[in-house]
Amino acid sequence: MDEVKVIEIKKSIFAENDKDADDLRKELKTRGVYLLNLMSSPGSGKTTTLVRTINLLKDKIRIAVMEADIDSDVDAVKIKEATGIKSIQLHTGGMCHLDAGMTRQGLDNLPLGDVDLVVLENVGNLVCPAEFDTGSCRNAMILSVPEGDDKPLKYPLMFSVCDVVLINKTDVLPYFDFDMDKCREYIHMRNPEAKVFPVCAKTGEGVDVFAEWLLGEVRTWKK
Amino acid sequence: MDEVKVIEIKKSIFAENDKDADDLRKELKTRGVYLLNLMSSPGSGKTTTLVRTINLLKDKIRIAVMEADIDSDVDAVKIKEATGIKSIQLHTGGMCHLDAGMTRQGLDNLPLGDVDLVVLENVGNLVCPAEFDTGSCRNAMILSVPEGDDKPLKYPLMFSVCDVVLINKTDVLPYFDFDMDKCREYIHMRNPEAKVFPVCAKTGEGVDVFAEWLLGEVRTWKK
Repeated sequence: MDEVKVIEIKKSIFAENDKDADDLRKELKTRGVYLLNLMSSPGSGKTTTLVRTINLLKDKIRIAVMEADIDSDVDAVKIKEATGIKSIQLHTGGMCHLDAGMTRQGLDNLPLGDVDLVVLENVGNLVCPAEFDTGSCRNAMILSVPEGDDKPLKYPLMFSVCDVVLINKTDVLPYFDFDMDKCREYIHMRNPEAKVFPVCAKTGEGVDVFAEWLLGEVRTWKK
Repeated sequence: MDEVKVIEIKKSIFAENDKDADDLRKELKTRGVYLLNLMSSPGSGKTTTLVRTINLLKDKIRIAVMEADIDSDVDAVKIKEATGIKSIQLHTGGMCHLDAGMTRQGLDNLPLGDVDLVVLENVGNLVCPAEFDTGSCRNAMILSVPEGDDKPLKYPLMFSVCDVVLINKTDVLPYFDFDMDKCREYIHMRNPEAKVFPVCAKTGEGVDVFAEWLLGEVRTWKK
């Protein structure tokens, strides 16, 4: 397997995370770097979706990925092998989320002058990551069909803070009681402005629509 | 819908959670009440599995359920409607886990003199709940097939602290790349003693084997 850089993230010393996140966002704007914070439950397909998205965009913009994980580096290796782009692993040492200070530690290990888009794959968790602004330009999350259409009712904050919700694993819709219309309705109860993209990372279906949206976001940010 | 009792749980004031958990476990032993702490990702099927298990056991032992959730009470209502047993909802107010003090607050709202088994359905999260001993007799977790067989590699602590792992949604095995043997191997890397039960809560397949194990546990505890 390819070797990837693994960074041991320390708990942030900044007490005021919101201020630190705003400062980071301003710095990224100045440098023309767009940061997407991608969240989800464990096993919803973040890494596979990312691989598809990156392969659609990597000839148009320069992309890097930061994979947050408690312990392993399987995701960073997978991204690097499947896309060839710069990918680093952030070890959170058991921490259940990333804040702006921790995100900054990761960014310091990327060649930001050569990057247009950084995707932060947050820890697989629908609770804690929603509570901390990472300094990203946008928050996105993936809800997979097998998890059920009621998740916006149970994890309200996560769905409130996300600008984009990808509904993944649409290929298994016939085998689960998942009502797409009801799910959209629940998502919009939490955030009326949220964009919802049904995708199937396994087959690639729908990922192009999300990739097109992301490309537009990055280009607008860099203006 | 049936009304269920909803308890707003406050953050525990006990600094020494491990000691408090041990004290709680001793008290439960004295009272002949077995507490099972059930953990999983969001959407892995905890509530459906519980309904099946309770319906297999409720004529043999007296059961109560405490449903921990950030905000909603859909799970407690579902349990009550589908099984008729005593079910209460614990609102964690955004907290991502339960500790022993919070568990005790829930138990104080149950008629423990009339109960043999209490199941605590923890917050859907593979990270934080693993870090806090709730005072339960055993920790169990559910991993569902769509989440992937690699989860023990990514969430090591959760699999280390669990005595039992239920592998749920076996009915959709044909549609996912999930290697049951590999998954068992990864689980046993984290905890060589862990019992692994493949189940399908939707059809009921395999749930009887888990229920039988649980019945034996409760009877041994009460001796």
